[in-house]
Amino acid sequence: MEKTYFDIISKYISLSGEEKCKMEALKIFHSLKKETILLKEGQYSNKSYLVLQGCIRTYYIIDGEEKTTALFTEMERLSPNCVLNKKPSKHFISCIEDSILAITDHNDEKEIYKKVPKIKHFFRVHLEYLLAKSQYSLDEFKTSSPEQRYISLIKNRPELLNRVPQHQLASYLGVTPQSLSRIRSRIRKENS
Amino acid sequence: MEKTYFDIISKYISLSGEEKCKMEALKIFHSLKKETILLKEGQYSNKSYLVLQGCIRTYYIIDGEEKTTALFTEMERLSPNCVLNKKPSKHFISCIEDSILAITDHNDEKEIYKKVPKIKHFFRVHLEYLLAKSQYSLDEFKTSSPEQRYISLIKNRPELLNRVPQHQLASYLGVTPQSLSRIRSRIRKENS
Repeated sequence: MEKTYFDIISKYISLSGEEKCKMEALKIFHSLKKETILLKEGQYSNKSYLVLQGCIRTYYIIDGEEKTTALFTEMERLSPNCVLNKKPSKHFISCIEDSILAITDHNDEKEIYKKVPKIKHFFRVHLEYLLAKSQYSLDEFKTSSPEQRYISLIKNRPELLNRVPQHQLASYLGVTPQSLSRIRSRIRKENS
Repeated sequence: MEKTYFDIISKYISLSGEEKCKMEALKIFHSLKKETILLKEGQYSNKSYLVLQGCIRTYYIIDGEEKTTALFTEMERLSPNCVLNKKPSKHFISCIEDSILAITDHNDEKEIYKKVPKIKHFFRVHLEYLLAKSQYSLDEFKTSSPEQRYISLIKNRPELLNRVPQHQLASYLGVTPQSLSRIRSRIRKENS
């Protein structure tokens, strides 16, 4: 199975045999089944998640209903706020698909970087890009209508349409599943 | 004036005399007056902004009205999406207060890090923290009512209440200035 991780990583970084051995010993790569829950509301955690393959989501349970707030696919990183503020998590994290993740403990990262310095670049190179994307997602959510958000999703993250269940996609867009159906049929009519 | 920049930076990083000279030559520190516009809708840009002192905001003009989406204070970094996707900016950036900013050109950052390696850590150390905060802000906006957002602001960023004009704070919270007034007086009554 480790071969799979390195096949994926080799797209982004070239590791020597020795570096691969060290990485294997660090046990940061995990293969997880669809619907695995990685973090629950109320739990403390030190872990960050980098998606190598698959899709994970954060969701809150509010008045008994799941509210999906964020979706992470290949090479996106989720740093839960509870890791940094050392408070119990307010949300859940689970796998939408069978996924391969690099899961790192906040306290161990320095040790990992010392053992395999190249990996620091691999983990950190995208941070600025992810920060810009995250800041833009918030701007977009604040300034657009649900229909505009759906059109933006079709344009910018079309793969999510087939990978994420409709009711989760609806709450991610801030609408009910019924509203999402209406938006979809309105757009279909306009384009037909 | 450079002394002021280094007084602020020295809280986070210790620079030698030679490093300070090199930093001065790079001309990345800028002292800007309140209401200076740093970026306009439609412009291309390669610049990111790290606030050393002061407060900046991003805002959109939608149907002739300003919509403030994000506020950045000390040690917060704004990486506009337009820098990374190389498209015209969809928003404006301006100073809410007289501000001291580190403004870096995306294409020059490698050169800066080569000249003063310590500065790489200074610019990058907070990225993961800022990413977690940004991801959490989006979660919070999606899962809370305007009143809950205002209460969270009082708790987590109380300094903004005195630093940001009310109409900008209202649109940042996703409400009209009238709604914000009602929320404020409701909370005052509950606490009196």
